[in-house]
Amino acid sequence: MKTIDFHTAMRRLLNCEDVLILTHANPDGDTLGSGYALFWGLQLLGKRVKLLNNDPLPEKYRFLSHGLENGSFKEQYIISVDVADKTLLGAALEESYGDRVDLSLDHHGANRLFAKETYVESDSASAGEIVYLLLLSLGVPFNKEMAGCLYTAVSTDTGCFRYSNVTARTHRIAADLIERGADHTWIDVQMFETKDMAFLRLQQKCLEALELYFDGRVSVLNISRALLNETGCKDEDCDDIVALSRQIAGVRIGVTFKERKDGGLKVSVRTHEGIDASQICARFGGGGHKRAAGCQFSCSKDEALKQMLPALEEAVCEA
Amino acid sequence: MKTIDFHTAMRRLLNCEDVLILTHANPDGDTLGSGYALFWGLQLLGKRVKLLNNDPLPEKYRFLSHGLENGSFKEQYIISVDVADKTLLGAALEESYGDRVDLSLDHHGANRLFAKETYVESDSASAGEIVYLLLLSLGVPFNKEMAGCLYTAVSTDTGCFRYSNVTARTHRIAADLIERGADHTWIDVQMFETKDMAFLRLQQKCLEALELYFDGRVSVLNISRALLNETGCKDEDCDDIVALSRQIAGVRIGVTFKERKDGGLKVSVRTHEGIDASQICARFGGGGHKRAAGCQFSCSKDEALKQMLPALEEAVCEA
Repeated sequence: MKTIDFHTAMRRLLNCEDVLILTHANPDGDTLGSGYALFWGLQLLGKRVKLLNNDPLPEKYRFLSHGLENGSFKEQYIISVDVADKTLLGAALEESYGDRVDLSLDHHGANRLFAKETYVESDSASAGEIVYLLLLSLGVPFNKEMAGCLYTAVSTDTGCFRYSNVTARTHRIAADLIERGADHTWIDVQMFETKDMAFLRLQQKCLEALELYFDGRVSVLNISRALLNETGCKDEDCDDIVALSRQIAGVRIGVTFKERKDGGLKVSVRTHEGIDASQICARFGGGGHKRAAGCQFSCSKDEALKQMLPALEEAVCEA
Repeated sequence: MKTIDFHTAMRRLLNCEDVLILTHANPDGDTLGSGYALFWGLQLLGKRVKLLNNDPLPEKYRFLSHGLENGSFKEQYIISVDVADKTLLGAALEESYGDRVDLSLDHHGANRLFAKETYVESDSASAGEIVYLLLLSLGVPFNKEMAGCLYTAVSTDTGCFRYSNVTARTHRIAADLIERGADHTWIDVQMFETKDMAFLRLQQKCLEALELYFDGRVSVLNISRALLNETGCKDEDCDDIVALSRQIAGVRIGVTFKERKDGGLKVSVRTHEGIDASQICARFGGGGHKRAAGCQFSCSKDEALKQMLPALEEAVCEA
């Protein structure tokens, strides 16, 4: 349960055999892109590899696994990518592997150090940047697919290079991945430039019910299962609604409540500069990054909002 | 009326005095960001400079001119930035300067060579990249403001690094501008992450009246003056509607009709890979880039659409 440095992480990747890669539940482009890039990288280093996710792969991310097939072997070494805590592996994976992860590669400052060894770089915009640097340093010959996986990781976790986590390094890595064959235009169209009518209806319904608090500085959007069913949207469609909560002019904190399949409530908090989303969420047992964090409730949306409003007011008033 | 090479363009910038910079009408982030960066650069080289635009500066771009003031002198040398034809200067500027432009710096392949000398680089994603390379090669000491102007030019003309015009060079330039002090997070929030309620209402109204043709492969959105007045939107709010026309799942060509203040019709065409928007628009006297082009009509929207539909059908069927 200790942190290790970059060179030790490199050595672990070089020396491991029969590797199982774990990604976080409700997977996004960063955990999957980083995970499948690592899959390619370790395979190109001659190792047997497999990757598991707690949930089915969302349609839009399926291309990331093209050309890869899980090996059939008993895992000797387990690596998690972009997973800040074992609970985030999802119930099934947590039960099987939660206490057996050998190496956690992550960019969440709040990583709970649940793995035997953790390499965490909290100022990295994505886990993808970390995996890129490790594979590059190991001299792995990048192929087009691996470059595409890493480009997806880097671009999705930065809202296509527009969030405050972006650094000059992020752009240099993107440049290098494009030169190594990442089909960035195709990936960007799939990730950012395609909105289906179901999503546009969901967006419209959410905006019609938009709530604003504290002189319009806090926005609250609410996505119930009924609304998802009515519009025909999937859970992964909600990410862009979450992004929208912060985009409304004047809003400093955007809060999105989403009813989970099991009836629980997932809360996503997005903030602008000067307001720490992870601090707000930590008060309700959650966590994340400075501008993007989350927490969970098992009560109704109205009750959860009532609990959160004082913390939200404090945060916007101090900012 | 001839094209010149990069080094000749450099020499012109080094030797010119008392410079007037012209940007295109209905200005966007690229023409203004490049124009004001050139303003800074030439001023830092010890020259007197002024910049003119046919239209008032849209609110969201006002920060680009901070710290700069037009000199009061008679111009000896006129440079246009991101202007493909003298008609695009706008009526007033065209009348005064249309035949007097000494140097046109541009990235439109369809530049009409209206200036005495033209440096055009059609595979550059933005005019900003060209101005960046010229100022860098001239050894101009970049300041934070100049870096911010160029970052705005580069990011806005690429939809924040997601359009097909992006190259590895685009990302490397962005990285360098961030290191030179461009406040990229603040700029991205202003340019991409802020939508006011008036815009969200406009988007909703446009989507309610969305027309789809040829099995959903062509989308048509319509923005009348009445709709702009009803929602309280400005002309510059329409750019994101234009972008939306291509983002609808299944759509290969997005067409947006916008009624101009003078009653004429501005048509914006956005395409996905394999369909040339500038070819479609050229058939109606317009032009632009492969994925983003435009043309004008003086008839009604229904009449203009009737004229365009055969060309649109041909383009999607050939693709």
